[in-house]
Amino acid sequence: MSRPTPLQVDDDELALLTDLYQLTMTQAYWKEAMDEVATFSLFFRRLPPQRRFMLACGQQHAAEVASRLRFTDGALARLAAVDQFETAFLDWLANWRFEGDIWTLPEGTPVFANEPLLEVDAPIAQAQLLESLVMNLVQLETVLASKAVRIVTAARGRPVVDFGMRRMHGVDAAVRGVRAYRAAGLAGTSNVLGGLRHDLALNGTMAHSYVLAHDSEREAFRTFARHYPQTTLLVDTHDTLAGVRQVIALMRDEPEVRIGAVRLDSGDLGELAKGARALLDEAGHPEVKIVASSGLDEHAIAALLADGAPIDAFGVGTQMGVAADAPVIDLSYKLVEYAGTPRVKHSTGKINLPGRKQVYRHRDAAGQFSGDVIALRDEPIEDGQPLLRLLVQAGRLDANEMARADDARERVADALHRLPDHLRRLEEGGSGYPVALSQGLEHLQSRS
Amino acid sequence: MSRPTPLQVDDDELALLTDLYQLTMTQAYWKEAMDEVATFSLFFRRLPPQRRFMLACGQQHAAEVASRLRFTDGALARLAAVDQFETAFLDWLANWRFEGDIWTLPEGTPVFANEPLLEVDAPIAQAQLLESLVMNLVQLETVLASKAVRIVTAARGRPVVDFGMRRMHGVDAAVRGVRAYRAAGLAGTSNVLGGLRHDLALNGTMAHSYVLAHDSEREAFRTFARHYPQTTLLVDTHDTLAGVRQVIALMRDEPEVRIGAVRLDSGDLGELAKGARALLDEAGHPEVKIVASSGLDEHAIAALLADGAPIDAFGVGTQMGVAADAPVIDLSYKLVEYAGTPRVKHSTGKINLPGRKQVYRHRDAAGQFSGDVIALRDEPIEDGQPLLRLLVQAGRLDANEMARADDARERVADALHRLPDHLRRLEEGGSGYPVALSQGLEHLQSRS
Repeated sequence: MSRPTPLQVDDDELALLTDLYQLTMTQAYWKEAMDEVATFSLFFRRLPPQRRFMLACGQQHAAEVASRLRFTDGALARLAAVDQFETAFLDWLANWRFEGDIWTLPEGTPVFANEPLLEVDAPIAQAQLLESLVMNLVQLETVLASKAVRIVTAARGRPVVDFGMRRMHGVDAAVRGVRAYRAAGLAGTSNVLGGLRHDLALNGTMAHSYVLAHDSEREAFRTFARHYPQTTLLVDTHDTLAGVRQVIALMRDEPEVRIGAVRLDSGDLGELAKGARALLDEAGHPEVKIVASSGLDEHAIAALLADGAPIDAFGVGTQMGVAADAPVIDLSYKLVEYAGTPRVKHSTGKINLPGRKQVYRHRDAAGQFSGDVIALRDEPIEDGQPLLRLLVQAGRLDANEMARADDARERVADALHRLPDHLRRLEEGGSGYPVALSQGLEHLQSRS
Repeated sequence: MSRPTPLQVDDDELALLTDLYQLTMTQAYWKEAMDEVATFSLFFRRLPPQRRFMLACGQQHAAEVASRLRFTDGALARLAAVDQFETAFLDWLANWRFEGDIWTLPEGTPVFANEPLLEVDAPIAQAQLLESLVMNLVQLETVLASKAVRIVTAARGRPVVDFGMRRMHGVDAAVRGVRAYRAAGLAGTSNVLGGLRHDLALNGTMAHSYVLAHDSEREAFRTFARHYPQTTLLVDTHDTLAGVRQVIALMRDEPEVRIGAVRLDSGDLGELAKGARALLDEAGHPEVKIVASSGLDEHAIAALLADGAPIDAFGVGTQMGVAADAPVIDLSYKLVEYAGTPRVKHSTGKINLPGRKQVYRHRDAAGQFSGDVIALRDEPIEDGQPLLRLLVQAGRLDANEMARADDARERVADALHRLPDHLRRLEEGGSGYPVALSQGLEHLQSRS
């Protein structure tokens, strides 16, 4: 083959997946012999208006990658060609290891503005170099999980299946996205590699092309149902309700055929679902379920269900796959302490919180989350549950904490019950969630 | 290490990066011995309202991946565990090769609604299996290039540099995105791996953390400028204009220091640029340029320039990195012919064009694009330039066409001069670009 697959990013190359200034700043630190411990904090300043909370996801991947990041000979040769780096610095990079600590919110933790998703304590030349990659990794999964959980919420217990692989932003998004969907509570995915790698059930129906490649819709339905008992048949290739009648006729004429569901993929889904349900029930097939897809998001699903559409499951792709209404959060990775001294950027009215931190989440008597306090990490705080946990210590992943991070799906499901009701509403606006600063942090902020 | 890097998708796994139904449909075709040649066409039905044209990008990657896609033993073992596939089918998949043809628009071609970006002719079990992956690959680069070219247009010749790696959707988006940015005409990228792999100049400045890690802003500027002559200094860590004065004082006190530019990254960029320009000019430093960044998109850049902001270059990240205003296009990969017979889906008011196609682009006497005609591929058309080219023939990449695809940047630059002026406007609405159907296609459509 003339060249490597254009999609591959080898472990070899991961250290180069960074912004140039991380490397030039690191070289400057090295030249200045600045090697005191720095703390960087990853947070966002405000929620997107379309979100009332975010689910922090991807910190585990970020920690994993940080703990094994290396500059290989191949990577260093490519850097040498950039012509900005001294040979002695590249030699030093050859031995570069992340040997610091990483504190993270457990995967799937609801997170609000100004709360750290992750904090890194390490010599500055180690902590600085992680910035771009850590942000990229956390951004993707957090954005996708935070969108998906809204769709799951809107479906009110009905299964939601991811159909979005083809519309997601590239290969890594398509694969890691499924991990975020699993955390968010989706029932399944059509994405084979994503589902296999991240342990989410595989689902699939059929495409219009299958119907069109056969001489008739009826013939397509017959063959597919024979090959796949209990399958879902796509009924809208020509005319949705006529398609449903074909399915009914098939079940009548060939009683051994078992159909699990029909899928509606165009038109007025609410009306068509009612029509399809009526036809199926009338024909004595209340067991055949109705799956709907086609440009759905949480608002469309909520509207369909509010209108009584008899839809049993939803397939969601495009809108969820890119989190179309809020495809990005304004994550910051900011230096908050260096050489034991809290640091803070002051410009233009942004709140920046100096110092190493911990977040404490409070519960009321019924177990509901009642508010958070952002405190200094070493401040004695008696109330509330501390959220940030030490996942990487002296450069090594904590195996117990890593295993714990795999519980994201259960953590999200539990948290959804504990979040105040108004935070699960889909509309914009309304009151937020109380996040206060501790006395210690307020005091430090006022002095900085 | 306990497990593989969570970011890696090996060549081994690419064949599994598909939707389950592609595999179940393929098994059904195999069981039914349906192996006639199918043609699938990749197109979008409408432009996003925020776009007047899209730049078709990523077809080359899609063709490259298709030509080498294989089901390895490892992949087949994982499929066997899915429990939907017969052993004999998996054996057949082991020998699966794409042996068909792929016609594509050259990378960077402006494309409009209903025009194929790509057509695949192959036995149906080959062509069907490409769908999900081809769509994923083309989607990413097309969406990003189409956003980036608007930002380049808004900057009216001033360099635009990509700062967005940290906000893009994962690793593949961050790397391949740079290829799209190169096509769109960006001047550089901060993304080291992306720039190295896709041949775009690397640029970088400094971060607030560098300033904060030093005892004073002045000290940070001094050290960084010594290490990197002609560098760009970030002046807004505390107070932007005070930061500019620090830069001026540094140049006054240490005349050997050479500063290339100052970077403004917060606040009212237009006012601050005017203030910074005045201070620098007054101090006798008209050679020091002004770089602006901070949440910029094409509208913000156009407004700054319309207001006379003396900004010499723009750093753009978040909005461009996810194409925030139109992060997805509704690409379809539709069966348009099977076994020599044109096919078409009819439902619910969507236009679907049957048959194999070619797109002809017309130019007026001045060389401007004056309109396109979508025709049947074998229809004798005398006027206009046929756009779709045969990139993969009988499963093999055409090396000349692949090399030609690398000219995307030149192709886009040329096309921007030839597109009607109104298509380069940034606002929504207004008239579109004339795309007609040929007589042959109209006739076929009316019969289908």
